[in-house]
Amino acid sequence: MSNQLQDNMQTKLNHIFLTTKGNTDILDITQQVTECIRSSNLSNGLVTIFCPSSTSGVTTIEYEPGVLQDLRRVFEKTIPQGELYQHDEAWHDGNGHSHIRAAILKASLTIPLVDGRMTLGTWQQIVYIDFDIRPRKREIIIQIIGE
Amino acid sequence: MSNQLQDNMQTKLNHIFLTTKGNTDILDITQQVTECIRSSNLSNGLVTIFCPSSTSGVTTIEYEPGVLQDLRRVFEKTIPQGELYQHDEAWHDGNGHSHIRAAILKASLTIPLVDGRMTLGTWQQIVYIDFDIRPRKREIIIQIIGE
Amino acid sequence: MSNQLQDNMQTKLNHIFLTTKGNTDILDITQQVTECIRSSNLSNGLVTIFCPSSTSGVTTIEYEPGVLQDLRRVFEKTIPQGELYQHDEAWHDGNGHSHIRAAILKASLTIPLVDGRMTLGTWQQIVYIDFDIRPRKREIIIQIIGE
Repeated sequence: MSNQLQDNMQTKLNHIFLTTKGNTDILDITQQVTECIRSSNLSNGLVTIFCPSSTSGVTTIEYEPGVLQDLRRVFEKTIPQGELYQHDEAWHDGNGHSHIRAAILKASLTIPLVDGRMTLGTWQQIVYIDFDIRPRKREIIIQIIGE
Repeated sequence: MSNQLQDNMQTKLNHIFLTTKGNTDILDITQQVTECIRSSNLSNGLVTIFCPSSTSGVTTIEYEPGVLQDLRRVFEKTIPQGELYQHDEAWHDGNGHSHIRAAILKASLTIPLVDGRMTLGTWQQIVYIDFDIRPRKREIIIQIIGE
Repeated sequence: MSNQLQDNMQTKLNHIFLTTKGNTDILDITQQVTECIRSSNLSNGLVTIFCPSSTSGVTTIEYEPGVLQDLRRVFEKTIPQGELYQHDEAWHDGNGHSHIRAAILKASLTIPLVDGRMTLGTWQQIVYIDFDIRPRKREIIIQIIGE
């Protein structure tokens, strides 16, 4: 590996701005992340997608209406909105289930960047999931460490 | 970006030592991670929090007593302590559910570091969750790659 | 830290090739990841394991037959194969549950590399989990950023 490449190892920061419907709204953000990578001029490294929020999360999925409906149903079955949450008893904001879904899915995702492209599979998209109970404007952090 | 900054890209390692109560004890470690960052003298990069353990995990949450109680209840409902675990049948240590909760939550979390601060949201804290069934002394790895 | 070390910060890419049985087959890939690290000649940095797939995931666990059986049972209880999935209604490939399990476990794992070794605990192995419903040949990405 040449010195020229090694000298280029650096950190680049970007933001994605989203308008969501809330209520486990699942948004495909693959294209926006790809644009962040293009504007960074980095080719090899690690892409981190981070949600600075306690009621949303990020993962990968095949972005197909059936699967999205299934994922919403499974979250509703395992962490139902209708149950009694102590968070809601204390704060009366009705999003106790949103906090728990977000804590379990987690706010961060890392994806290798190779020759200017993320190593996603053919049927694998990056999704932001907003678990909060109302439409929101959201800001997501895209950071690339690479060369 | 100047050559001076690029020359500073490096890796720094720290440890956090915790005393837990076990039984899905949830500890806010945000302040300790912040201190690791301060002592690293790095400003921009990626912070990795890693649990070298098979019965604990790390995530982010709003560290508020109601939410913590809700999270414990959801783990108990979906992966109950009282069920029959083959791990316990074989090893008789009674922490089969701890292993499963940890494997699903996962041992690792990555957070961007920007201008000396993690990009956490206002109501978002980093928590270490000890799923084991007894009080334990734990060591957590904090690694920063950055400049 | 000497300039010599800083000049060595770089990105290395490797692949692991697996043959799985599908149906939540859980494979210990710790040894293969360790070999990727050895061949990289990097000593300190961050190891990312990434599944370029929407029906598989990666985590850590104590690789012990009882725990593996417990983990399969919990996935089957919380996200059962036998339920009706809209993905299967639309595509008739019978792996709706595989997509949901993969999206919740997530495709990525990051582990610090310190002095040539991953910071895994004594009873902690890296596992690849193939949730698809048939035997498959899989390729996993191992990327190391370090010096």
